[in-house]
Amino acid sequence: MFQMVKIFDSTLRDGAQAGGVSFSVEDKLKIVKALDDLGVSYIEAGNPGSNFKDLEFFKRIKEIKLNYSKLTAFGSTRRKGISVEEDENIKSLLMADTQAVAIFGKAWDFHVTEIIRTSLEENLDMIKETIAFLKRKEKEVIFDAEHFFDGYKSNPDYAFRVIKAAVDGGADCIVLCDTNGGAFPNEVYEITKKVAKTFSVEIGIHCHNDCGMAVANSIMAVEGGAVHIQGTYIGLGERCGNANLSTLIPNLQIKKGIFCIPNENLKNLTATARYISEITNVSLDTTAPYVGNTAFAHKGGMHIDGVNKASHSFEHISPELVGNRRRFLMSEVSGKTTILPMIQKIDSSLTKNSPKTQEIIDELKRLEHFGYQFEGAESSFELIIRKHLGKYKPFFELNYYKVIEEEPANNKDYSSSALIKVRVDEKEEMTATEGNGPVNALDKALRKALEVFYPSLKEVHLTDYKVRVLNAEETTAAKVRVLIESTDGKELWSTVGVSTNIIEASMIALVDSIEYKLIKDLEKNEGGLSYGNDHDTKDFSSTCGIG
Amino acid sequence: MFQMVKIFDSTLRDGAQAGGVSFSVEDKLKIVKALDDLGVSYIEAGNPGSNFKDLEFFKRIKEIKLNYSKLTAFGSTRRKGISVEEDENIKSLLMADTQAVAIFGKAWDFHVTEIIRTSLEENLDMIKETIAFLKRKEKEVIFDAEHFFDGYKSNPDYAFRVIKAAVDGGADCIVLCDTNGGAFPNEVYEITKKVAKTFSVEIGIHCHNDCGMAVANSIMAVEGGAVHIQGTYIGLGERCGNANLSTLIPNLQIKKGIFCIPNENLKNLTATARYISEITNVSLDTTAPYVGNTAFAHKGGMHIDGVNKASHSFEHISPELVGNRRRFLMSEVSGKTTILPMIQKIDSSLTKNSPKTQEIIDELKRLEHFGYQFEGAESSFELIIRKHLGKYKPFFELNYYKVIEEEPANNKDYSSSALIKVRVDEKEEMTATEGNGPVNALDKALRKALEVFYPSLKEVHLTDYKVRVLNAEETTAAKVRVLIESTDGKELWSTVGVSTNIIEASMIALVDSIEYKLIKDLEKNEGGLSYGNDHDTKDFSSTCGIG
Repeated sequence: MFQMVKIFDSTLRDGAQAGGVSFSVEDKLKIVKALDDLGVSYIEAGNPGSNFKDLEFFKRIKEIKLNYSKLTAFGSTRRKGISVEEDENIKSLLMADTQAVAIFGKAWDFHVTEIIRTSLEENLDMIKETIAFLKRKEKEVIFDAEHFFDGYKSNPDYAFRVIKAAVDGGADCIVLCDTNGGAFPNEVYEITKKVAKTFSVEIGIHCHNDCGMAVANSIMAVEGGAVHIQGTYIGLGERCGNANLSTLIPNLQIKKGIFCIPNENLKNLTATARYISEITNVSLDTTAPYVGNTAFAHKGGMHIDGVNKASHSFEHISPELVGNRRRFLMSEVSGKTTILPMIQKIDSSLTKNSPKTQEIIDELKRLEHFGYQFEGAESSFELIIRKHLGKYKPFFELNYYKVIEEEPANNKDYSSSALIKVRVDEKEEMTATEGNGPVNALDKALRKALEVFYPSLKEVHLTDYKVRVLNAEETTAAKVRVLIESTDGKELWSTVGVSTNIIEASMIALVDSIEYKLIKDLEKNEGGLSYGNDHDTKDFSSTCGIG
Repeated sequence: MFQMVKIFDSTLRDGAQAGGVSFSVEDKLKIVKALDDLGVSYIEAGNPGSNFKDLEFFKRIKEIKLNYSKLTAFGSTRRKGISVEEDENIKSLLMADTQAVAIFGKAWDFHVTEIIRTSLEENLDMIKETIAFLKRKEKEVIFDAEHFFDGYKSNPDYAFRVIKAAVDGGADCIVLCDTNGGAFPNEVYEITKKVAKTFSVEIGIHCHNDCGMAVANSIMAVEGGAVHIQGTYIGLGERCGNANLSTLIPNLQIKKGIFCIPNENLKNLTATARYISEITNVSLDTTAPYVGNTAFAHKGGMHIDGVNKASHSFEHISPELVGNRRRFLMSEVSGKTTILPMIQKIDSSLTKNSPKTQEIIDELKRLEHFGYQFEGAESSFELIIRKHLGKYKPFFELNYYKVIEEEPANNKDYSSSALIKVRVDEKEEMTATEGNGPVNALDKALRKALEVFYPSLKEVHLTDYKVRVLNAEETTAAKVRVLIESTDGKELWSTVGVSTNIIEASMIALVDSIEYKLIKDLEKNEGGLSYGNDHDTKDFSSTCGIG
């Protein structure tokens, strides 16, 4: 029997309530795109009534066409003692102009009388009237019955009356929320089953992880009859987080055969988790089920031996199904099939078995072990391939640089200064600049020196600069990864550098960015790959190293 | 009815199989001590047959008297085709000289025939004979039925014969292992119940987290009749880890009234988690249930308002029960009600309407607009309040610093050097250091200079360092926010700095961290708030600015 659940992602709403998380409008647009590409049913993207930034987002999101997901705005029922029409939050909610809205209301009698301090009857009216109003505006209405499980345990009769009010208002889906995250799997199952038997409306589940059981509780709710699951893609959320959808989707679809997202997208689960954590600037838990870096990593000798004999001896699924990979923590093996297409883009004659292919894979492994990550830095990756295939030329040498940072500073506007010496063929150029911080000073100095030789660099500027501390436990001596995105007004490209020294990491990424631009210019001007016209080909394999 | 389960911690055995984890003998001794202090029933401390280091550990552990826990050595059943007496691993196991031993054997027919490659009958003999031998040596024997759930699903009859062989051998406890972590809560419950009804022996559970349900599966096993739970204290283990005992213990004892550890030790759950993660050198997940840094942190305005009215409105238990604490995360959405309790902690006479309260809120807004974020940096926030209320003293002045970054560098190990001059009262101290990068060099220089005056700073080290680029579109001239977390081995505190210059932002956070530590030391030594004994009170409102 075909069975399916609707996946409702709240990364941009409940996820934004997580400690340390703060999304820009740009971040939100990127995450919506990623979740739509994956194929979740709903994307809850903000609370337009509480947040000015969210209203701007809902304006800009209209430029983007979504293929799978329904955009959803989040809000409360009307406030007590006023009509729905005069409630400012409801007005903002309508201004978001989304197909679906999620409305929360109180299902725990204690919360009604002690927290929002109104009568139990008025609370029922607030729910019913708000939903009915939004249905008249032709919205799909999802009703979040806040604290439903606590409410049911306190006063089951009232909790059911709350649901009845929502159903009477015309809600399309009733979501049972374990807002405090204190429910246990058995009770979630029993209570969900009772609700599903009593009401002939779609039932959803929304779990928090305060007892470490949000995923299991969601699964138990599905067993009890829920067909709509709310969570956040990498588990972000208030306090201990929400049910983790990157765990729930494969749990349901791969292990139980319950449809959640298009089958062909399952292999993108891992990449999506990495992308969202990168944008959110939180580290993806290395031990995260399915998508974590060690989710299929084997360390014990007997485990490695077993997996070599038959992978299912110590793996509950094949890592490839979710786009992850098996790792042996002693001796790593890498996937040639992933990297080969990128190599063939530069030299189509190479195959899986070419020695050059193996050489590039070895180099990649070495760099990844060091802390590099080429997701989101494809141009640096392309440069590595080019260096190994002789499709590269060193456009300049960086002979020397020095950065000085001083407080109190000589120049009040700039506390940093940099000097730099580059060489192109036989000509040297030395220059100095001041800047807002050491990286800014060096960035300016490097461009100033190279523009003398390559005027097209004047068009280039950076559009993004990200810093990521890798092994934070080593604190200020930790490695940092710097990602930069550059543009010449026509194209965008991104590069990466890793070092224990943030300045060195930035320089590696800056140098890659400039080299990539110069290679692309050369290819365009000469109508194809052609190197060595003006330069000695012996130099081709050397990199433009720093120091 | 009094109900209890025995807690079996495997941090030092299964936890050692986690990626990146490697225990020294000293580490292991410290963790045994911490777990015994907490009061778990068993500590599985190593595999003497596989590991030379473990044998040394078992020798040294005898010097330590344990109060609650039984030390347990881990090993396999005898190998196929030999007698128990001649098996070298069993000899090593006996040499460990522990009261209890845990022995694993295969319960999945596929593993017997395809991985260890012997007959199903021989596997039963291996189990029964090994256990019988160890019982003759007067050991308490815990039998880990490896892959029991997969085995039961593949061949239920054989899986039960494995248990019968262990019972016939005289095992004191039979542990059902979900070795691959692929089981679901319902099946764990059903299968455990069947086993518990069939055999009149203690039944245990051992779950892995590959589906994100190890905790819930363990709970379901207890519902099904298990009375012994294996896990690791902070969830470390092969691949996605083991059932997390710092979640399971409060789940069972606080929420279900099932005894696990002495009641008076529940308040040490959080400190024990921090201590073990510190020794293991892994970051404790900030969102970990019960013991994580944000487990009781509230960010949404309505949540904060609710918790202020009644804490159980958004908390499933009181954080004090597990030695954790409530936090209100500062953000652009939080209002006076969030900030007032923090102000009153410093000066309880202030109210919502005091001019000082408004002054602090205005300052907070100004700083947030500038790019500050006090969520996760409460110590910097406390310093701001103190500066406004005169409950602050400047412990030092930072007169001058200079950082030099050079490539190629003079010293091959360090490309950065820093010099610094501080003043305390009338005394100046100037010093210089080298470092891995500019921030590391400055961090070292600042501490080196100040330790001359404040020796207690020697205990302080950083435990986390995070960098966030704020307005990335301005790229290398963008503002950065640096968050650092520091510890003196007893307490954790976190501070923040914002600047367009990453070095300046880091210095602001470092200076806050040191000032916070010195203020706390002063308060402890003087038994209360008392400032200005040695310093001019006129200076109180000035900050220890940079430059």
